[in-house]
Amino acid sequence: MHAGHGGMRDMQVFGNGIRPELIGRDMYQLMSELYPLCRSITGNGVRKTLQLLRHQISLEIREVPSGTKVYDWTVPKEWNIQDAYLKNAKGEKIVDFAKSNLHVLNYSIPVKAKVSLTELKEHLYTIPDYPDWIPYRTSYYRENWGFCLSHKQFQDLTDSEYEVCIDSTLEPGSLTYGEFVVKGRMEAEVLLSCHICHPSLCNDNLSGIVLMTFLAKYLSTLPVRYTYRFLFIPGTIGSITWLSLNESKVSKIQHGLVAACLGDSGNFTYKKSRRGTAEIDRSVVHVLKSLGNHFVIQEFIPFGYDQRQFCSPGFDLPVGCFMRTPHGQYPEYHTSADDLDFVRPEQLAESFSALLAILNILENNATYVNQNPECEPQLGKRGLYRTVGGQQDTRTRELAMLWVLNLSDGSHSLLDIAERSSLHFDVIRDAADDLKEAGLLKEYPG
Amino acid sequence: MHAGHGGMRDMQVFGNGIRPELIGRDMYQLMSELYPLCRSITGNGVRKTLQLLRHQISLEIREVPSGTKVYDWTVPKEWNIQDAYLKNAKGEKIVDFAKSNLHVLNYSIPVKAKVSLTELKEHLYTIPDYPDWIPYRTSYYRENWGFCLSHKQFQDLTDSEYEVCIDSTLEPGSLTYGEFVVKGRMEAEVLLSCHICHPSLCNDNLSGIVLMTFLAKYLSTLPVRYTYRFLFIPGTIGSITWLSLNESKVSKIQHGLVAACLGDSGNFTYKKSRRGTAEIDRSVVHVLKSLGNHFVIQEFIPFGYDQRQFCSPGFDLPVGCFMRTPHGQYPEYHTSADDLDFVRPEQLAESFSALLAILNILENNATYVNQNPECEPQLGKRGLYRTVGGQQDTRTRELAMLWVLNLSDGSHSLLDIAERSSLHFDVIRDAADDLKEAGLLKEYPG
Amino acid sequence: MHAGHGGMRDMQVFGNGIRPELIGRDMYQLMSELYPLCRSITGNGVRKTLQLLRHQISLEIREVPSGTKVYDWTVPKEWNIQDAYLKNAKGEKIVDFAKSNLHVLNYSIPVKAKVSLTELKEHLYTIPDYPDWIPYRTSYYRENWGFCLSHKQFQDLTDSEYEVCIDSTLEPGSLTYGEFVVKGRMEAEVLLSCHICHPSLCNDNLSGIVLMTFLAKYLSTLPVRYTYRFLFIPGTIGSITWLSLNESKVSKIQHGLVAACLGDSGNFTYKKSRRGTAEIDRSVVHVLKSLGNHFVIQEFIPFGYDQRQFCSPGFDLPVGCFMRTPHGQYPEYHTSADDLDFVRPEQLAESFSALLAILNILENNATYVNQNPECEPQLGKRGLYRTVGGQQDTRTRELAMLWVLNLSDGSHSLLDIAERSSLHFDVIRDAADDLKEAGLLKEYPG
Repeated sequence: MHAGHGGMRDMQVFGNGIRPELIGRDMYQLMSELYPLCRSITGNGVRKTLQLLRHQISLEIREVPSGTKVYDWTVPKEWNIQDAYLKNAKGEKIVDFAKSNLHVLNYSIPVKAKVSLTELKEHLYTIPDYPDWIPYRTSYYRENWGFCLSHKQFQDLTDSEYEVCIDSTLEPGSLTYGEFVVKGRMEAEVLLSCHICHPSLCNDNLSGIVLMTFLAKYLSTLPVRYTYRFLFIPGTIGSITWLSLNESKVSKIQHGLVAACLGDSGNFTYKKSRRGTAEIDRSVVHVLKSLGNHFVIQEFIPFGYDQRQFCSPGFDLPVGCFMRTPHGQYPEYHTSADDLDFVRPEQLAESFSALLAILNILENNATYVNQNPECEPQLGKRGLYRTVGGQQDTRTRELAMLWVLNLSDGSHSLLDIAERSSLHFDVIRDAADDLKEAGLLKEYPG
Repeated sequence: MHAGHGGMRDMQVFGNGIRPELIGRDMYQLMSELYPLCRSITGNGVRKTLQLLRHQISLEIREVPSGTKVYDWTVPKEWNIQDAYLKNAKGEKIVDFAKSNLHVLNYSIPVKAKVSLTELKEHLYTIPDYPDWIPYRTSYYRENWGFCLSHKQFQDLTDSEYEVCIDSTLEPGSLTYGEFVVKGRMEAEVLLSCHICHPSLCNDNLSGIVLMTFLAKYLSTLPVRYTYRFLFIPGTIGSITWLSLNESKVSKIQHGLVAACLGDSGNFTYKKSRRGTAEIDRSVVHVLKSLGNHFVIQEFIPFGYDQRQFCSPGFDLPVGCFMRTPHGQYPEYHTSADDLDFVRPEQLAESFSALLAILNILENNATYVNQNPECEPQLGKRGLYRTVGGQQDTRTRELAMLWVLNLSDGSHSLLDIAERSSLHFDVIRDAADDLKEAGLLKEYPG
Repeated sequence: MHAGHGGMRDMQVFGNGIRPELIGRDMYQLMSELYPLCRSITGNGVRKTLQLLRHQISLEIREVPSGTKVYDWTVPKEWNIQDAYLKNAKGEKIVDFAKSNLHVLNYSIPVKAKVSLTELKEHLYTIPDYPDWIPYRTSYYRENWGFCLSHKQFQDLTDSEYEVCIDSTLEPGSLTYGEFVVKGRMEAEVLLSCHICHPSLCNDNLSGIVLMTFLAKYLSTLPVRYTYRFLFIPGTIGSITWLSLNESKVSKIQHGLVAACLGDSGNFTYKKSRRGTAEIDRSVVHVLKSLGNHFVIQEFIPFGYDQRQFCSPGFDLPVGCFMRTPHGQYPEYHTSADDLDFVRPEQLAESFSALLAILNILENNATYVNQNPECEPQLGKRGLYRTVGGQQDTRTRELAMLWVLNLSDGSHSLLDIAERSSLHFDVIRDAADDLKEAGLLKEYPG
């Protein structure tokens, strides 16, 4: 254990100790509890969700009143729903909110009426290509009501009149979000954000919620270098609200990730920050390369999840988006098929490990100065050369030491050295620690 | 219509209104009238050519006296020719200037003599590989005389003596060139240049002449932003002369193109300016990519047409060269086969449209500053989101707006944004106009 | 012949005059004389080697006492050996230093004893994959003794006891190295280094020794621009020692090469300097491209030969490593199979020519300013255009002149121009000389 980077080196060691499959199981268990709740960008579904998370981490729950101006936007009225159904002429409930909260157009205004089939059809949403699935639709900023149903259900509608009931409220209230901070030795922050506004949908977005929760829980057990700020916010309006109310904190954010769609069986996808070569971008690429599986790196586009707010030109934060299969690229996306079968514990566990490996680089990256810059130091007389055994290949460790010594001139970080040498960051980090212990490296004061 | 960029946005609209096939037909008609004239780097052929162009545009015709020093060069004596022929022993004209002005070595000194076949052969030029074609040859800076003829004609020469007659003059006079300026709102200029020194050759160089003429005619009907300067000059000595006599104007040139070989059926070729990444270079590449056909981008070489003078290190102007099949890369080049059959009206029309599209980018490119840089503005409440219908795909327009908002930080032009987003410049331009109208963008003052 | 670059242009001309096959033969002859000597990082084998080189060049032989502190290292005790053998129970010499000096672990301490086979085996080294070859092993910095033998010999060891004798000394003495300087017109230096510490091994490292010797001999006959410093040093400790004792000279080194493994039949390999884009790096790449054969360019790694010392961060010298098949990448490496059959005179000759071509670029590279920067100068009236005949293709020479004129703005060297134009450096150099003679270029004063 080394003083300067104690935290995450412990984590690494502890990381070997953790059993991802157990964490995967616990995340999946939490997801199962969260699944039935009807979340939206405001309302009691979000509050209950955050309260359930408080069983894991001592989350702060914030309430921002409807009508609050947040940059160009206004915090909307709060939406809540008790029940909703569609009855046929015989009085049978043929679409029932109690069976799936996706059945109601999210943010539907209250309605109780008899309507003709023709009129009803203007308020119905289906997916003809997947006739068994219920779509997920919203209408946050235009008042409307509607039902989402399977195309099969839709095709059975033959009566001339139907009874519609949406027992919802759309009234002044507040927007609710969660915030949790793991204090580190430095004030500099890593921002980790997920959205919490989707009802019964697992990959988008319960996977992000459970991963951020267990990552926060785990990090809070470690003596970390960075301060970690976790946000559990409704999409778009949540990040805009947080940024608007926390401008003084923004300058502390040095790295960040938006996490979403991390429970499916697809390969990892990383969408870079607007900067494109930020340390977080390079750290994620380094980890994905080292995992050995196929992965996709997307250039930044100002579209998709809250990254687009964090990366707006007035902030330009180094925040990337970490996913498996991206939103919109799997047919189950925003349908009832994104359920507890679509997400698996072992996939959540793998995502957890990958996120840890990324944070591990951020925690352990540093820049050093070789204290013996003229020619190589004699490693042999210090017991550093061809004497280091153990798990890692000896020649690789030697080569790593030579790389660290050669490039530690104050202008190359350990991540720079890992990239240039094509060696794994951990190997470079270990070599630097050994050299520091031998007095051959000092941290760069700059 | 938008104030700041009124000119070319009109042109775009009007561009939809123009019928390229009609312009192609008119350009071809003008080419047919110009074809018979015997042009050279000086003389009456050039004067008559420029006078014919005055039927289309109010071209200024400049005369620069022989002997004028222009940098390292001297304006040469003026060359004119009335007639020339070669007669066999029977007195039959076997080579006749009246049939093709290519038959005479361009800039031949006068000669009237009987010469032996042996002596004659030192003054004859043919193309053995294409025995039916007459080559085009010149001797501007070394006094000489000669005949160009088909290899078949050459092989029929069996008499022992021939009568040669070249009724030409090479005397102090002047170099003639044409200049036409379309005044824009700005003093900054776009230079558009073609060479006018070739006799009966269509692709090289009548295609350039007619394209520049009709482009000038068309632009002069529009309220353009840039000032456009069209030069109709003899190759090499013409550009050297113009630069030498117009040094004070050079600093106004912000973009430029040399146009040549634009009537054949080959794909477009663009040779970059010496700078390589000038706005004109990027604009041409953007247009050629958007046209969807195969095209060739050549790196700058200090060789070929007047670009080499404009890009000499003392000027280093951002001037590229726009062609279809480049000089020397088609067998008809500099032969009698580069005739009115080799060039087609529809190919001229396509070149015209491509040139317009390039100028369209120059006219409409601009840099803006997002007036709502913290987070995205709420496009929906301004009627900008999912409400824009019409010809263009709605999602593309939305994405274009998000890109423009995200990158409009004063350091990215619309062309930069088009390149980074891989969206068409016009889509980005339209998005910027909509955002400007909504008060979300302001032009960058820098 | 041109004043400014007289030296190497002569060399080029003379280079045409030299007969590489004769130089190859002479190098091979010298190698054969050096082959039997038992070299190490210190001792009489090195001294004899350097004395033999003095028959070719007036090398300075330096002695640095054991115990001298050189940066983090200490000059070791001097090692010498008279004889060594291994006798079986019958008293037969079954391993004999007199037959191959590889048989003794280099730097073995003296030993004379009877040892059991079990104990002996801890001191024996073989190559099971190549049972006929003797490996080359060293133990410079850990006192030890040992024998290297073929695996076949090893398998014949069946007696229970053996007599071992190593008649060596390891005592205070000195480290010996050679240095030879060819004075140029400039104080700026080119460093050329080879290691001299291997016993009977031809490719690694006698090939480097004989090449540096004959290159030094040849350069000393020429009026060169740069000062050339040749170092004949033991690996690692030699370069550390030289750098430590010559710090004031280091700042004069502008280019450098470490030469090794240059006699085998493999293609050329160049390992770049730490800087990666130094003039030496670009010069070598230019030469290797022009040779037309396959070659390998390796990025810098801080491993392999003395480049790692010259490129340590405290010096960061622009020193590359020029090889054929790199160390460790041929099975004969560091075995008795790296013998006089493995290296051929014609391969040494080819390496010599390549090295000359590289130095030719360093000698002749320069930056000029076009004295006629506005438009092209009229080459024809100076007899430069289409009048240059001879061996080189006329159009290439013209194009080279146009490139040199176009890019000679004070910010492009001739090597820059050669790279951008894809023309051979010599063609560019010749064009520049013609233009300079015509008064069209002046050397850039910066």
